[in-house]
Amino acid sequence: MAYAGPVRPTETAAVVWRPVAAGAVTITGGPLGARQTANRTAAIPAGLKQLREAKNVLNLELAAGKAEGEAVGPIFADSDVHKWLEAAAWEYGRGADPALLDDILELTDLLQNAQADDGYLDSVVQLRGLERYSELEWSHEHYCAGHLIQAAVAYSRTTGRTELLDVARRVADHLVATFGPGKNPALDGHPVIEMALVELYRETGERSYLDLAKHFVDTRGRGTITGRDVGYYSDRVPVREATTVEGHSVRAVYLAAGAADVAAETGDAELLAALETQFASMALEKEYLTGGLGARWEGEAFGDPYELPNDRAYAETCATIGGIQWAWRMLLATGKASYADQIERMIYNGFISGVSQAGTEYFYVNTLHLRDRSVPDHDRTPARGRVGWFACACCPPNVMRTFSSLEGYLASTDADGLQLHQYLPGTVQAGELKLTVATDYPWQGKITITVDQAGPDETTIALRVPAWAEGATLTTAAGTEDVTAGEYAGARRAWQVGDQLVLDLPLTPRLTAPHPRVDASRGCLAIERGPLVYALEQADQAEGVAVDDLRLDPAGELVEERREDLLGGVTLIKATGSGPDGPVELVALPYHLWANRGPQPMRVWIPLQ
Amino acid sequence: MAYAGPVRPTETAAVVWRPVAAGAVTITGGPLGARQTANRTAAIPAGLKQLREAKNVLNLELAAGKAEGEAVGPIFADSDVHKWLEAAAWEYGRGADPALLDDILELTDLLQNAQADDGYLDSVVQLRGLERYSELEWSHEHYCAGHLIQAAVAYSRTTGRTELLDVARRVADHLVATFGPGKNPALDGHPVIEMALVELYRETGERSYLDLAKHFVDTRGRGTITGRDVGYYSDRVPVREATTVEGHSVRAVYLAAGAADVAAETGDAELLAALETQFASMALEKEYLTGGLGARWEGEAFGDPYELPNDRAYAETCATIGGIQWAWRMLLATGKASYADQIERMIYNGFISGVSQAGTEYFYVNTLHLRDRSVPDHDRTPARGRVGWFACACCPPNVMRTFSSLEGYLASTDADGLQLHQYLPGTVQAGELKLTVATDYPWQGKITITVDQAGPDETTIALRVPAWAEGATLTTAAGTEDVTAGEYAGARRAWQVGDQLVLDLPLTPRLTAPHPRVDASRGCLAIERGPLVYALEQADQAEGVAVDDLRLDPAGELVEERREDLLGGVTLIKATGSGPDGPVELVALPYHLWANRGPQPMRVWIPLQ
Repeated sequence: MAYAGPVRPTETAAVVWRPVAAGAVTITGGPLGARQTANRTAAIPAGLKQLREAKNVLNLELAAGKAEGEAVGPIFADSDVHKWLEAAAWEYGRGADPALLDDILELTDLLQNAQADDGYLDSVVQLRGLERYSELEWSHEHYCAGHLIQAAVAYSRTTGRTELLDVARRVADHLVATFGPGKNPALDGHPVIEMALVELYRETGERSYLDLAKHFVDTRGRGTITGRDVGYYSDRVPVREATTVEGHSVRAVYLAAGAADVAAETGDAELLAALETQFASMALEKEYLTGGLGARWEGEAFGDPYELPNDRAYAETCATIGGIQWAWRMLLATGKASYADQIERMIYNGFISGVSQAGTEYFYVNTLHLRDRSVPDHDRTPARGRVGWFACACCPPNVMRTFSSLEGYLASTDADGLQLHQYLPGTVQAGELKLTVATDYPWQGKITITVDQAGPDETTIALRVPAWAEGATLTTAAGTEDVTAGEYAGARRAWQVGDQLVLDLPLTPRLTAPHPRVDASRGCLAIERGPLVYALEQADQAEGVAVDDLRLDPAGELVEERREDLLGGVTLIKATGSGPDGPVELVALPYHLWANRGPQPMRVWIPLQ
Repeated sequence: MAYAGPVRPTETAAVVWRPVAAGAVTITGGPLGARQTANRTAAIPAGLKQLREAKNVLNLELAAGKAEGEAVGPIFADSDVHKWLEAAAWEYGRGADPALLDDILELTDLLQNAQADDGYLDSVVQLRGLERYSELEWSHEHYCAGHLIQAAVAYSRTTGRTELLDVARRVADHLVATFGPGKNPALDGHPVIEMALVELYRETGERSYLDLAKHFVDTRGRGTITGRDVGYYSDRVPVREATTVEGHSVRAVYLAAGAADVAAETGDAELLAALETQFASMALEKEYLTGGLGARWEGEAFGDPYELPNDRAYAETCATIGGIQWAWRMLLATGKASYADQIERMIYNGFISGVSQAGTEYFYVNTLHLRDRSVPDHDRTPARGRVGWFACACCPPNVMRTFSSLEGYLASTDADGLQLHQYLPGTVQAGELKLTVATDYPWQGKITITVDQAGPDETTIALRVPAWAEGATLTTAAGTEDVTAGEYAGARRAWQVGDQLVLDLPLTPRLTAPHPRVDASRGCLAIERGPLVYALEQADQAEGVAVDDLRLDPAGELVEERREDLLGGVTLIKATGSGPDGPVELVALPYHLWANRGPQPMRVWIPLQ
């Protein structure tokens, strides 16, 4: 989850910016707004249906004593329900849909009844009679607890209601009583509990939750987790000594995001610096152009530096979601625009590629290259196209909760004013300042911000200028000025209602070269426009010419073509190039839209010869 | 195993060439001779020690009632003993080492005593009380039986002794009684039984063994094997309908080799044609330059066409061994030189890279690229270098049996004479013809063949001219003639003792380009010389220049340097190129010798810019 609630000030907290309150941002349209609507109207209802059919809900009914039978599914089955609950909580907070509340309350009731007297709650472990915490490297008990806590925090923040928070606090109190210095030293194989406990601390003010999160972060990286290689679990190198990310990519970035939470709340500059180094290493050496994370199917893992295959990119949807969460925490802790750039790259490419436009079909794996004759040999294989659910269904409800809390990543505040990081049509409020954002971004580069309400004092409105936006300008009543790409452009005033700021970001299509050590993309260039990575998909190419035989002429012109009839409205880019039989026009569409017309050959990096 | 025994003529057998008898070829030196010696003197003794330490032998003792306890290790533990036994059998046949015979007889005695009254024999299944054949997709019961049969055939062929063959026949008779049309229709998840049964048929003349092998081949590819995706098991497409190889690479090539055996013995031209198509697809789209097979760690599998990552090449040693076995059967069935070229490529590169020069350390995975800072996160990871044994120890004893039966791949015969496919110093006999081969190949290209014995009739001596050997010449008493690369050069005479043939293969170093669809090697060239693929290893490069920063100048000269002081004598190739600071000399060594000075950065495909 984006940490979207108020950070309770403590004597030690060290952040540059703080999130705005839940409900302080609205999204009223644009491509991401449409995705959020599809998430609410289609994905969340379908998701609960899937969770019932896959028996995740049944497990809770069994544990609650409302049905009889045996637990079904993977050991972490509860976590998918919790993630759905978090999604529903954010949505209910926004829309107060009574039918959604009924579902939330039904599940909350099951959780209340399933919870053991001492606070323990994990339906699969309880039903299978497994010894608690005896196989924590694989049992995901902390992981499930973490997602439950996150759901409860979301529900509390958006509604003020405490039914679910009470369950979560009892879970957390049980963890505090069981784990920590001098108690059970075990660590969960899959992080997320760290972020969750810090959020619960933020929501409740209970310091022991933060302390336990800190303990989990401090004791990881000492090789105590067995089962697979310790690198898989991010348990090979202590978090504050690590210089890169490794192993299972979702685990790695969830851990890093939780460590960033701990660093922020405890004012731990050393830990924060280590996380900055790790993030920089990831961004330079282990992240796809799409913001995809994880080069390897084997172990769903980060690869070696510069090991970034396009055809077998894993780039799990959950990993990019975790990357967004980590980047958000780093952004608030450091105030560096590059983290907001990362969030934008991840959201518009590797994250939304994970779900169909309709909202109900998902990619687990977000490849950057699909060849013809690819064998659809796995339920995660891109050759099957997006599907409705997975045997390991972590990604779909993770997508749901991310869309439903998307507002949390758009703006922040500090004593001086407000920072706008992402540009979606809607409204933003922080303190006495209230703004309306009007834009057709990312199709158009013009972003108009109108002051709807302001206090009497001077405040700063800071706008991120993406690093790719060379030549951007900011227009206010004082005139038009050039602003610097990769920084925040600010204007400080005693704002009046009706004041406007117009940020103009040049969206000229551009060619991007890979790092010279990335062998998989050598001799290729990629097309980008604004925050969007483009791709060649077979459906758009000249008939009879295979995508894998296309070559790009880097000296040719890149021409935009707006197509309202295609995929709900899209800006294509046409490039000059060649096929086996001579010159041919190449047609690129935004990467995240591929496979909405069926799975078919596609590539992001285009060979030059 | 190479099928190295006499093919019993049947009314239906359809092969162009037949193998020479066991013992009809000797290897007396050269790099492969040295490897074979290391295999005999170091690897085979160390292998038995490893099998005792890893408890594979204990399992047989337990099943034989000679010890008490529980079975240890993977379900296919017996197969590694069987493969070792096959290796020992070939070696004993050559050297008659009495200590080796003691070991063979000790293990044979255990197998005799472990075998159930009805012929069933699989120590782990027996000891664990598992229901026979109830989980054949994973239990490897046919797989273990197949390796036992192969060991028994080797021992019978080389010694004429039948102790082990009797055990194997009872195993095979049990299979014939249990499986086949109208009986248990199940298939083993891991092929090898097909090759084994055909070999047992060749050794014994018992037709039911061939029929059962044919049944297994004919019924595979109908999606009956569950557990993983059917493609993994080569069970998605019927063998005679498949147009490529897919899934787990060892399984795929073992199945294909067994199918080739069936096709040869039954004169099944349709099946043989399908196998030719499959082999061609593999060679064009799914085989590494090194003869390595299998692009994916996930599932140890072939990838999609042209998916050939160098850094994460799996290229399991066992898969290349299986590739050699398949190619050998295709060579005999078709008489096409390209299959012998493939055998040579595989032996000199992807196969011998799998073992250290000392003979006792192994690569499971034969990567074509190791970067610096590669995390050694798995016992198979190339970053650990070769190791003495693996948790899944299929490769080491597979290497042993391949070296010990290497003679089987060198020559063949037909009614017209003798074909020499590979050039090692030694002797070859077929019919009344006996030859001595003298050569320093592959370091030197001159191969001198002297007739030591000949009958009175005209016979043909046919010599393979590799496809890369443009400009090759053949010199006989009649003079010197140009011979065609990629074909056999023959001379037909009534040979006299002392007659000589001198084949001269030009070993000029050459640059090889990747297929334009192989993205992983785009913008790169590889250096080859004769049958050897070369690689840049860090130890040989200019100080301070990382292998991954080196660039090759394709217009530069390739200069040979013979170094007797290095790695037992090696011909290096020096190329011109550049590093980050300007021009630099690139030094390449034969790929298979990398990591004999510790694991370190290495790459086969060298970027041009």
